Amino acid sequence: MKQKNIHSPALSRITITDSLFNHYVSIVAKKLIPYQWNVLNDCEPETEKSYCIANFRIAAGELQGRHKGMVFSDTDLYKWLETLAYCIERGEALAYVPHADEMIDLLSRAQEPDGYLNTYYSINCPDRKWTNFTEGHELYSAGHLIEAAVAYYKATGKAKLLEIAARFADLICERFAPGGTLENACPGHQEIELALIRLSACTGEKRYADLARHFLEVRGNASEFLKKNLDEQGRDRIFPEFYDYDALYAQSHLPPTEQNTAEGHAVRAMYMYSAMADVARVYGDEDMAESCIRLWRNLTEKRMYITGGIGSSGHLERFTVDYDLPNDRMYCESCASVGLMMFGQRMAALTGEAKYYDVVERALCNTVLAGIAAEGDKYFYVNPLEVWPANCLSGTSMAHVKPLRQPWFACACCPANIARTLASVGQYIYAQDEKSVYINQFISSELITEIRGTTIALKLRSELLQAGKVNIIISEGRNQPVTLRVRIPPYMEDPVFLFNGNPITPLIESGYAVVAVSREEEQNLEIHANVKPYWAAADKNIRADAGKLALMFGPYVYCLEEVDNRENLANVYVSPQAEIVPVANSTGLPGTLPLLCFCGQRLDPGLDSGEPYGKPHFQFTPESFTAIPYGLWCNRAPGEMMVWLKAILTIPLVTESERTR
Amino acid sequence: MKQKNIHSPALSRITITDSLFNHYVSIVAKKLIPYQWNVLNDCEPETEKSYCIANFRIAAGELQGRHKGMVFSDTDLYKWLETLAYCIERGEALAYVPHADEMIDLLSRAQEPDGYLNTYYSINCPDRKWTNFTEGHELYSAGHLIEAAVAYYKATGKAKLLEIAARFADLICERFAPGGTLENACPGHQEIELALIRLSACTGEKRYADLARHFLEVRGNASEFLKKNLDEQGRDRIFPEFYDYDALYAQSHLPPTEQNTAEGHAVRAMYMYSAMADVARVYGDEDMAESCIRLWRNLTEKRMYITGGIGSSGHLERFTVDYDLPNDRMYCESCASVGLMMFGQRMAALTGEAKYYDVVERALCNTVLAGIAAEGDKYFYVNPLEVWPANCLSGTSMAHVKPLRQPWFACACCPANIARTLASVGQYIYAQDEKSVYINQFISSELITEIRGTTIALKLRSELLQAGKVNIIISEGRNQPVTLRVRIPPYMEDPVFLFNGNPITPLIESGYAVVAVSREEEQNLEIHANVKPYWAAADKNIRADAGKLALMFGPYVYCLEEVDNRENLANVYVSPQAEIVPVANSTGLPGTLPLLCFCGQRLDPGLDSGEPYGKPHFQFTPESFTAIPYGLWCNRAPGEMMVWLKAILTIPLVTESERTR
Repeated sequence: MKQKNIHSPALSRITITDSLFNHYVSIVAKKLIPYQWNVLNDCEPETEKSYCIANFRIAAGELQGRHKGMVFSDTDLYKWLETLAYCIERGEALAYVPHADEMIDLLSRAQEPDGYLNTYYSINCPDRKWTNFTEGHELYSAGHLIEAAVAYYKATGKAKLLEIAARFADLICERFAPGGTLENACPGHQEIELALIRLSACTGEKRYADLARHFLEVRGNASEFLKKNLDEQGRDRIFPEFYDYDALYAQSHLPPTEQNTAEGHAVRAMYMYSAMADVARVYGDEDMAESCIRLWRNLTEKRMYITGGIGSSGHLERFTVDYDLPNDRMYCESCASVGLMMFGQRMAALTGEAKYYDVVERALCNTVLAGIAAEGDKYFYVNPLEVWPANCLSGTSMAHVKPLRQPWFACACCPANIARTLASVGQYIYAQDEKSVYINQFISSELITEIRGTTIALKLRSELLQAGKVNIIISEGRNQPVTLRVRIPPYMEDPVFLFNGNPITPLIESGYAVVAVSREEEQNLEIHANVKPYWAAADKNIRADAGKLALMFGPYVYCLEEVDNRENLANVYVSPQAEIVPVANSTGLPGTLPLLCFCGQRLDPGLDSGEPYGKPHFQFTPESFTAIPYGLWCNRAPGEMMVWLKAILTIPLVTESERTR
Repeated sequence: MKQKNIHSPALSRITITDSLFNHYVSIVAKKLIPYQWNVLNDCEPETEKSYCIANFRIAAGELQGRHKGMVFSDTDLYKWLETLAYCIERGEALAYVPHADEMIDLLSRAQEPDGYLNTYYSINCPDRKWTNFTEGHELYSAGHLIEAAVAYYKATGKAKLLEIAARFADLICERFAPGGTLENACPGHQEIELALIRLSACTGEKRYADLARHFLEVRGNASEFLKKNLDEQGRDRIFPEFYDYDALYAQSHLPPTEQNTAEGHAVRAMYMYSAMADVARVYGDEDMAESCIRLWRNLTEKRMYITGGIGSSGHLERFTVDYDLPNDRMYCESCASVGLMMFGQRMAALTGEAKYYDVVERALCNTVLAGIAAEGDKYFYVNPLEVWPANCLSGTSMAHVKPLRQPWFACACCPANIARTLASVGQYIYAQDEKSVYINQFISSELITEIRGTTIALKLRSELLQAGKVNIIISEGRNQPVTLRVRIPPYMEDPVFLFNGNPITPLIESGYAVVAVSREEEQNLEIHANVKPYWAAADKNIRADAGKLALMFGPYVYCLEEVDNRENLANVYVSPQAEIVPVANSTGLPGTLPLLCFCGQRLDPGLDSGEPYGKPHFQFTPESFTAIPYGLWCNRAPGEMMVWLKAILTIPLVTESERTR
């Protein structure tokens, strides 16, 4: 396997100009950073206390008390620092640099002499460090510390947080690497693995990557390791919902290279697969690469929602079985789709194939965007494709599904994960290697980067959904030819390429249109494509979607909301031939994506009133419906929402199978 | 309110001759009584241990050890004794009388000097009696003891168990009746209330009924009583799933007379509503009667499945909200439908109206029958209307749904509850008052009873579904006129009555056809009716059933099984006009209910392979399908099952609403 060197350009070199994404990216610096800072400091009045910074002060000996909040509450600060780093890199939220430095100083004081850093264990039970791998999240928290440290170092050039992280990483190496006392231990929540890869790339220290590889290789060697470890904890559990813990949950049922299906807790799975793709790339490990490809295929072909959501079971937030994709009771955690984007990005870096970004785009434009309010201050953990607010009741099987975004959670993984993803969304738009610039997303933006020692300035302007057009202008000095690789997604039908106004037929390689750019003056690649909204159906094995249609426009899934279409969306029917009419968005929702209107039918079963079941006199009434992008739902009025609509299907007088006999 | 005296004749006077029900009734005596006896004694090799009788031996001081099993494990023996009593009353399972008497002796030795009887508390924590009302189930277990005692006394005339129960009931009166130290306590799981009513009727002691009434009246006065009581238990919980306990769960949110909707744990609700109907009847309590009628209407019009199943949430086995009736993830506990039958019977006794037996019949013929295998040795707790075995996975939101009946549960409420219901099914067929015999179910059987001091012998032969005919022969000596009241259910269309061969037009009163029988010689009432299978639809607010059809035949819901119709039933479509053809049942399933065959269509979305979502080329293929009665599903091969099938609907060129403009 030829090792590729595809990587993202620095965020400092990317400016987002797209109206939709610029809205969300800006909101991170303007609203989320201040809001989450207040939350970390427990001074956001209407929000559950996080205790996060208080815990660090207690660990540093500057406050008295016990650790409060989730066992992994430290990661709230780490993810905030990581997000802030991306904002700083883009020149935003600079007023928070002093706060960040102050926090880094606090971390250095909270860190123990041997490098250990975890407020829950330092404060509450220092004698129980490294004993509860299943629930303790020590390595998980360390991973987020490392990710924050690398990001902050890259953004500011300041090394203090990186040194803190490296000291902790060194301690982890000492204990967990082969020969260490804990060499057989398996992390209960993956994250350390991909973080160590980043740390290795940032510091040039191979042993960090080696430990990441070891953490993957040790996994599944003793499939009952985590279950046994949990049983050793006795009755006083951190996570009572683990009463039916199994080896699949944290993907420790088999060694990663022997895993064929996406199993267990979806976020844990994504973080592990991401690390697997990293290790496959860094070490040229073909077994690992094959396993990644197998897992990717199972995941995206049989266990993923049309929205890029993953995790079909609410209980334990996990995968279930091929084609089991219920639309109302699933989990589809925002964090899991963030993890799916990470995995996809790494698969593209591993293979050089554009198709992985189809899925990244699907997850980003739908589930990740849906995870955050247009105002930036409220969040979904769970992202259903169908909501009936009346049955989202506490104390029932549907308690995890919220019909409204929530301000902040005690378990605050999703808000922070969405924030760091949006703040660094540029990394998913562009990539580069020795001679090429990759355009992976059609999010209008500008890039300045160096390739072969020469500077490239690139302006991407996408009006694909609005006008069927993408425009890429390349300027600034070049003394070496550069290749432009533009992903051609499946929804871009019959693309026509104009280079400096002249039609060209570029080579399509690994899903990318490849255009060599060699002249020094400004050059212009225009792509015209037929991007039309359409009705999509699901594989016949996906029982939840049988006989249903989803409205798609490019990567965007559309949905009906009660505010536009009245209640009881279960009785809405539409023909697969129904014409779809884009209409300018006048709802005040961010961006310029059109609304989509169509004529359908509303079904009334026509029962006699009073009785719940009886002989029907079905009656259809024609009605106009308005769909909005799923990523923007629940930003106006609460109510029902539905992605998959019932299809009106007609039976041919002679069926296809009879005709072909 | 005029007090009625409608009651069931003794089971000893009823002989079941119906081929379907006789199969199940016989199996109780022949198989369940021996099987459950072995289970209670922990000598059924492939079954989870019950520890039930061992616990009583420990409590009696005859064995050493701690209580094991569920906190309410005593009720397994009580329900077995109650079931056995009904068998004995019918002249069956007489070989078990010595075992029963031995058990009753054991109970008397396990009973404490003050009358207290509960092995969990006597053995494990005698100092904590009457402290944990929310989880402890002491009053619940006492209730089942009382029900068993009344049944055993009626069946055998032996008073020993009744004396044990009455001693315990006296202790409960002393503590819980007004003036007692626990006068404000509210039972965490209802059952004691209806049991005390039975004890009062059996012994003539009004104070037992008074205490039942008090237990209802005290309920909801302090809506947080049970929640607070639970919080007082600290972290060592009997039921960890109560982490999100609320006042609705055990119907303690409001006083019963102020409750309007069926809420909380479905079995608890049914037992309470049954007691409420009893109290309304015994005391002529109109407020209570009105509350029963309101609750019945909400329950059966908005929160009940077409199968008579109830309880829409798997988590906490409870009601949710009006019209929330998901077909796959619900609970629909067998015990809850048993409780619904009890409530319906009592509502009919309270009001004299036949319609309550429509629901009793629906629950009995569908959910209760489905709860037990044709062989009698396996049971469903949870009764879905749609199963895809692949996604019924442990450690997920669907873990509670079992695609196969299970041999016995550690929490063995359902098997014993089904057994006692089937063993006493005669009580749901016939009732009587001062001058009438009521025929409430069309289950072929014979009755001998006394009315107005005269003996009536009655033979009921129903071939309603097979031949559209019911035949009732009344014979034996009469010196007083007697009224025959035959329930005319909604599915009996255009009934024609022949009395001794002559057409008559009987008065229809409260849903009963009323026929006076005054002559002494044998007389014959024949009813001919048009009972045809038909396609039913659901109220438009039941979103889970929108655009779907269920196949009904009389009270029987039919379903498709994979064994007859291949997998992937989600893609089966049928027209509401599809002809339904009854076919003799050649599957070996018990009874003579026909199979129902029809022509439908199988949908293929016609996607390109490999991709889970894409542009469809829908294609229908015609196919013949075979449906079986829901109550008999899962008796041949495991596989998918589905009640609600997708309807093929056509849009009229001009819609109804346009035509009427």
